[in-house]
Amino acid sequence: MKTLYAADGSDLHPHFGPYFSDGKRRVDYVLAYQIQKPNTVRKPSPKFGENNFIRRLRRSISMRSSRAPLQPKEDPEITAQEHQTDYHEDDKRFRRDEYEENLLETGLELEKDEGSKIPGIGFLKIHAPWHVLCREAEFMKLKMPTKKVYDVKQGGNVVEKVRLFIHKVTAPLHPKVDVSHPHSVKSLSHPFSREKQHLFDLSDKNKFFDSTTRSSIVYEVLKRTRCTKAKYSMVLYSYIPFVVLQLLYEEWASYSVFYKYQPIGLIRKYFGEKVGLYFAWLGVYTQMLIPAAIVGVIVFLYGCATVDENIPSMEICDPRNNVTMCPLCDQACSYWKLVTACGTARASHLFDNPATVFFSIFMALWAVLFMEHWKRRQMRLNYIWDLTGFGEEEEVSVRNVKKNKASPDHSHICLFYLYVFKYNHVLAPTQSLDEKVKLTCSDRLPAYMTTVVMMCLMISVTFAIVFGVILYRISIKAALHMSSYPAARSNIRATVKTTAAIINLIIIIIMDEIYAAIARWLTTLEVPKTDKSFEQRLIFKTFILKFVNAFTPIVYLAFFRGRLVGRPGKYLYVVGSYRMEECAHSGCLMELCIQLCITMLGKQLIQNNLFEIGIPKIKKLLRQRKSEMDTKQEEELNKTLRRHEKDHFLGPFIGLNPEYMEMIIQFGMVTLFVASFPLAPLFALLNNIIEIRLDAKKFVTELRRPIAAKAKDIGIWYNLLRGLSKVAVIVNAFVISFTSDFIPRLVYQYTYSPDGTLHGFTNHTLAFFNVSDFQPGTDPLEPMHLGYKVDMCRYKDYREPPWSTTPYDFSKEFWAILAARLAFVIVFQNVVMLMSDFVDWLIPDIPKDISLQMHKEKILMVELFMKEEQGKRLTMRERNTPQQPRSRPNSHTNCV
Amino acid sequence: MKTLYAADGSDLHPHFGPYFSDGKRRVDYVLAYQIQKPNTVRKPSPKFGENNFIRRLRRSISMRSSRAPLQPKEDPEITAQEHQTDYHEDDKRFRRDEYEENLLETGLELEKDEGSKIPGIGFLKIHAPWHVLCREAEFMKLKMPTKKVYDVKQGGNVVEKVRLFIHKVTAPLHPKVDVSHPHSVKSLSHPFSREKQHLFDLSDKNKFFDSTTRSSIVYEVLKRTRCTKAKYSMVLYSYIPFVVLQLLYEEWASYSVFYKYQPIGLIRKYFGEKVGLYFAWLGVYTQMLIPAAIVGVIVFLYGCATVDENIPSMEICDPRNNVTMCPLCDQACSYWKLVTACGTARASHLFDNPATVFFSIFMALWAVLFMEHWKRRQMRLNYIWDLTGFGEEEEVSVRNVKKNKASPDHSHICLFYLYVFKYNHVLAPTQSLDEKVKLTCSDRLPAYMTTVVMMCLMISVTFAIVFGVILYRISIKAALHMSSYPAARSNIRATVKTTAAIINLIIIIIMDEIYAAIARWLTTLEVPKTDKSFEQRLIFKTFILKFVNAFTPIVYLAFFRGRLVGRPGKYLYVVGSYRMEECAHSGCLMELCIQLCITMLGKQLIQNNLFEIGIPKIKKLLRQRKSEMDTKQEEELNKTLRRHEKDHFLGPFIGLNPEYMEMIIQFGMVTLFVASFPLAPLFALLNNIIEIRLDAKKFVTELRRPIAAKAKDIGIWYNLLRGLSKVAVIVNAFVISFTSDFIPRLVYQYTYSPDGTLHGFTNHTLAFFNVSDFQPGTDPLEPMHLGYKVDMCRYKDYREPPWSTTPYDFSKEFWAILAARLAFVIVFQNVVMLMSDFVDWLIPDIPKDISLQMHKEKILMVELFMKEEQGKRLTMRERNTPQQPRSRPNSHTNCV
Repeated sequence: MKTLYAADGSDLHPHFGPYFSDGKRRVDYVLAYQIQKPNTVRKPSPKFGENNFIRRLRRSISMRSSRAPLQPKEDPEITAQEHQTDYHEDDKRFRRDEYEENLLETGLELEKDEGSKIPGIGFLKIHAPWHVLCREAEFMKLKMPTKKVYDVKQGGNVVEKVRLFIHKVTAPLHPKVDVSHPHSVKSLSHPFSREKQHLFDLSDKNKFFDSTTRSSIVYEVLKRTRCTKAKYSMVLYSYIPFVVLQLLYEEWASYSVFYKYQPIGLIRKYFGEKVGLYFAWLGVYTQMLIPAAIVGVIVFLYGCATVDENIPSMEICDPRNNVTMCPLCDQACSYWKLVTACGTARASHLFDNPATVFFSIFMALWAVLFMEHWKRRQMRLNYIWDLTGFGEEEEVSVRNVKKNKASPDHSHICLFYLYVFKYNHVLAPTQSLDEKVKLTCSDRLPAYMTTVVMMCLMISVTFAIVFGVILYRISIKAALHMSSYPAARSNIRATVKTTAAIINLIIIIIMDEIYAAIARWLTTLEVPKTDKSFEQRLIFKTFILKFVNAFTPIVYLAFFRGRLVGRPGKYLYVVGSYRMEECAHSGCLMELCIQLCITMLGKQLIQNNLFEIGIPKIKKLLRQRKSEMDTKQEEELNKTLRRHEKDHFLGPFIGLNPEYMEMIIQFGMVTLFVASFPLAPLFALLNNIIEIRLDAKKFVTELRRPIAAKAKDIGIWYNLLRGLSKVAVIVNAFVISFTSDFIPRLVYQYTYSPDGTLHGFTNHTLAFFNVSDFQPGTDPLEPMHLGYKVDMCRYKDYREPPWSTTPYDFSKEFWAILAARLAFVIVFQNVVMLMSDFVDWLIPDIPKDISLQMHKEKILMVELFMKEEQGKRLTMRERNTPQQPRSRPNSHTNCV
Repeated sequence: MKTLYAADGSDLHPHFGPYFSDGKRRVDYVLAYQIQKPNTVRKPSPKFGENNFIRRLRRSISMRSSRAPLQPKEDPEITAQEHQTDYHEDDKRFRRDEYEENLLETGLELEKDEGSKIPGIGFLKIHAPWHVLCREAEFMKLKMPTKKVYDVKQGGNVVEKVRLFIHKVTAPLHPKVDVSHPHSVKSLSHPFSREKQHLFDLSDKNKFFDSTTRSSIVYEVLKRTRCTKAKYSMVLYSYIPFVVLQLLYEEWASYSVFYKYQPIGLIRKYFGEKVGLYFAWLGVYTQMLIPAAIVGVIVFLYGCATVDENIPSMEICDPRNNVTMCPLCDQACSYWKLVTACGTARASHLFDNPATVFFSIFMALWAVLFMEHWKRRQMRLNYIWDLTGFGEEEEVSVRNVKKNKASPDHSHICLFYLYVFKYNHVLAPTQSLDEKVKLTCSDRLPAYMTTVVMMCLMISVTFAIVFGVILYRISIKAALHMSSYPAARSNIRATVKTTAAIINLIIIIIMDEIYAAIARWLTTLEVPKTDKSFEQRLIFKTFILKFVNAFTPIVYLAFFRGRLVGRPGKYLYVVGSYRMEECAHSGCLMELCIQLCITMLGKQLIQNNLFEIGIPKIKKLLRQRKSEMDTKQEEELNKTLRRHEKDHFLGPFIGLNPEYMEMIIQFGMVTLFVASFPLAPLFALLNNIIEIRLDAKKFVTELRRPIAAKAKDIGIWYNLLRGLSKVAVIVNAFVISFTSDFIPRLVYQYTYSPDGTLHGFTNHTLAFFNVSDFQPGTDPLEPMHLGYKVDMCRYKDYREPPWSTTPYDFSKEFWAILAARLAFVIVFQNVVMLMSDFVDWLIPDIPKDISLQMHKEKILMVELFMKEEQGKRLTMRERNTPQQPRSRPNSHTNCV
């Protein structure tokens, strides 16, 4: 009797660790709940005698029907203990009891543990006996390995040898994890069924279902069990041996193994398929970044190597080409010499050379290859993990419709079998189905309207912020230009760029957090029907907001800056008298590159260090302080605490979405503007190598063990990746043709150049301006700044000279080059899309060896069942004739 | 005894029609085979006594083990009958016997019928007894309706009312077919399992499996049964009552019901899911064509209505605009007046007006809507037909690798369980799996190389033919121009166009047939592994060839004709001295339209009438003549023939691929160049209304009943449709911007026009040419043809005038308009693609009511099983304690 509510610490013994206090029944799941502080507990409350009587009655009834192992609480001490002085507390306890009774009804076995070292927290340990496991496994159609074992042939002799060789070479890259079964043998899997028990190897029933399966079975039962309102906080007992945890820590969650593959099988075993797939995906992504990074570095080096052979920058840097340029701002600025732009021209070449075009085609195909590679890897994992044929059922689960914390994590049980919490307390499934219809379109309309309005508002806020930063840049620049300190004036560009970029970065990071909160709030307003739908809507909103937030400044730089400037004598002014920003002489590509670089590095560094390492640590500290102990006591306690008690102090698992989101935004950075920044894959690679181990550490040491959720694929993220890689093609096409000087150079070389080289290109790109055409009041205050009188200045544009019949109109060259740019976009987009589709079509989604093996399995399965049928027929024949009077006799009369 | 090889005609009695001669066992399948003519049969061949002995021994052994209803052939008459004088014939018979024994082994029951009215043909009737049906249904995981019935709610009150109203209004459109169960009630389906027999309503075992299911079960068994080489020609006995056939004929296969929906449920019941899906698809396509046709007609009428307000054609037709045009050919032609092009200019407006742009955007979205609509319809059918969850298994079936007729129809049984025919005669499945690896890449390389080379060759042949037609046109035109008969000269254009278009059409139709044969041959060469792969490869090849064949002349007209002409004084010449073709003054759009019209109409009329009606009739005639009877005798015989004997004279079912292919090419015509021919949907609609009933007639009356193949979707055709609608977007973008005058008009109106209207557009599009710049020998022979001396003639192009600094170069307008055209392509393509993706994303793939219902079913299923579990637990509890000694006692010790 006493052992059930074990407060005597008997199960502290290491031997009993993961077992019930009887030392025989495994703990498959632990629920935690709030109880009154122990010092107020031990007093019975006579007021609730009647209540207690009813409960007792009810329990004894349920006992009779369910044969539950939880004994009736006749023990006076325990009866006393379970009553609380507080009415609310008692009500809670009453509901918990009801829930527990329902659990017993399902066949689960329970053990309470309220006398733990942590005051105010009670634990409910749950054990699933064999018959429950079998029933639920059959019900969930879990595929289990059968006795039938077959050889896995890896292909012909040569293929096999090559495979072995590769395996040998890459041996140091593989984590040192014991593989449970040799690779050359696999056992046939079949959905578990009690009627076909003979197929399975049930010699050791304790090991047939592994711990992850057991806990997910219990979780299924918990989800299905109806309850009124009992609130449990979930702590999943991590009863995989400490050795395995140690192994995970050493071979996965450590920076020293950064060069190794991840032990995906082990991760899946410990954290479930969903987490396993995330890390597998992250691994594939990181692996695929290696070739991209290498090619990117080569492209960058090519730029460095050819910078001295680049004719346009040579021409700009040549002081003999005495070109007088028009002033960069009104009045305060004066004429300047083109040769002063030499530095930026040379730097621009690093990112604006023909290799960039090749690289962005390469990256478009890389993205497709990545998707294909992932699809195949996913298929392989599905096969190895026996998920083929597992239909991802739309969960009929509850949304926790609490206003304060409607998070999609399952950290609060009990969830309802249906999402009817809101309408009625206890509903049978069929009833609640009708209930669902009640929330009609008109009920939902306000929420949807709010969502649309808020999304638009948020997006405009982002645009406004970007515009604000632009204004900041323009005004600061103008102010600095006008200041009389020469030191300030010389550092103008550097100062403005640096401060603006940092402001941008900080705003992006802050808004990211705000947007995440808003997206969550909006999704809660919508009251989505299922967890899955909640998650999808949340992801969709968060993605849009974060994406707009991260990419608006970059898109502005790439496509709008310097386009809406006007021309000398007819500049475009915003907010009174500010001239719109111009690009540096050699185009905006370099500034785009700087912006990308700062955003990527800054975001990754700050978000990784601050948010992923810093904040969890602070949270943990706060939690510990909350429990009002000083560190010394705590440390001492820590040694005596049991595992599930320790786990209680860990952070809850809040889902993989933030991790995925971060990676998707990074993927966007890598693919969308890769034409302007070939080093992006390298940065991403370096970040991800750290990211994998960081996430691993977080999962192994800082979070409670998540529910082992089954998943066949990465869901909506795959579609987002696909969408991004499609958008990337068109964005890159525009970057190459409009932001870079690639097309004008090409057109000049093959059409206008007298000798087929780029000599004279710089001159060709500069239009003439007659200084007498300045609008009154905009001409420079110091016209003699350069030491001579200027009649004609130059500016970068394709326009007619002042002496033509249509002065300052766009010239024929302008239109020809525009046509070439547009033609390039069309050709690039369609060719790359066609190539992508072709690659997609060419590579089968299912790896050949897997499809062969699946085929083989199917045949083996057919054989197995045919044999069984024959056996059955033989035994049936002996007793069958009288049993099938309708169909058999006919054949018999014929036989005679 | 005698009844088994019933030659006594006892089953001619109508009552026994679809039954074995005992009148009790249903005929589920009939196989036909060649036997020696009856007159040579009845002589026993003593030579093969030993052979016979072995066979008899073998049979008696097999008899003992299988308790088959086919009795041993001790009857001397029958024994005599089964021997053939011919060795080859005997060998065949031996193999057939072996196959039949194998069939008996599987539990099927057989009845032979060699004494039929048709000499030389024997029939093997097959009956599947109840236990075989159950076994195979469980094995095939067939979903069958359970006893559990539930109400189908169609949504709220308003929704329900609207639905009823719509149903009432469309009542005359629905075929008068009795619905077997009311729509408001549906029974829950579950994969059949013998262990769960209690779930199903087995009160009438004869009706539980319907005839289609029964025959497909038998077909599965036939496919699986191993045999050496017995060759059967398959006739499936159509034992659906004559009433149903009549119903199908009246409510479906008749032109008088052309306006009605098709009885899809009935079609599926009679012909299986695959055929049902084809007709459902054809129905959806035809239905979707109605709005497209209406909008198309409106667009066309808009063109007709505005033809008098069209300023450019008014300007051309105005004789006051005295424009002298440059000659259309060298020497023979002279200058001409623009006003003579008035007719074509007015006609062009019909197809080249702003409404066309709207229409092609509309059609792009229409295509997406069509796909979405189909996806939903397919889902609904899948649900109604209980196909959800049915995994389309890659069939491990045989390819019939005979050289002469390797058709993918299953008209020849026995197929092998694996495709190993070629290598070895009898192989166990596992053996053959290893066998498969033998055909390595290097074995396949020659076939693949041949395929690639042949495909390239065929495509170049198509190009050559098109070029040939062009040359024909050019040369005939030149010849006619030179001829001295004025009558000939006046009819030049009409003559040339008509003959060329007819030649084109004839060539397309002839080449279509040739290409189909070549594609089949090439696919046979490749020896694909499975039937499915064979089909896919064949479709892919045929599609490419037919598509290229049909669209090359059209693509040439749309995008190349008139572009490679050169300019006066510098024309482009081909094959000696022929000038390349020019378009009429108002662009090639009209000619494109005529070509499309002729191709569509001609192809559909000729192919429908000739190939689909004519040739089958001729074939039938030939077959009948072959059987050497005159018509009178035949008619008399026809009355006495049993159904399977009649069916023997019908054509075999050769698959749905030709039907699909025809429709896909038509879909291409409708979507690809819709910008140039808004009446295309109307033509397609008219054709399809006939096509549905024509195909229906063919299926009901002229073909043997096909195997009821299960299919969840229309397979590769869906991908082809998707691909086509993607290509359509870009093609239409190019047609609008390059083939039509839409963009130049727009640019003129908003940029160059002095008053914002199109006045002056015609003048703007005409460049000047100084007649003194003609190349020597190309100037007109009759320069005074118009009655005055010409110094300057005009031609349609954007080029600099002779008096500019760069005479005859492309002008600034040319480049500006080119840029506008290209920009339009980019905008159009991306906007339409985005809209399509948006529509795709907006419309859920699964209709809401279906997903609700599926959800409800899932819950009901859970409830059903939970109840069952509870029942089981209660019964188990009474006897369980001693049975589960390992897991239960623990809980008991605790309970005490």
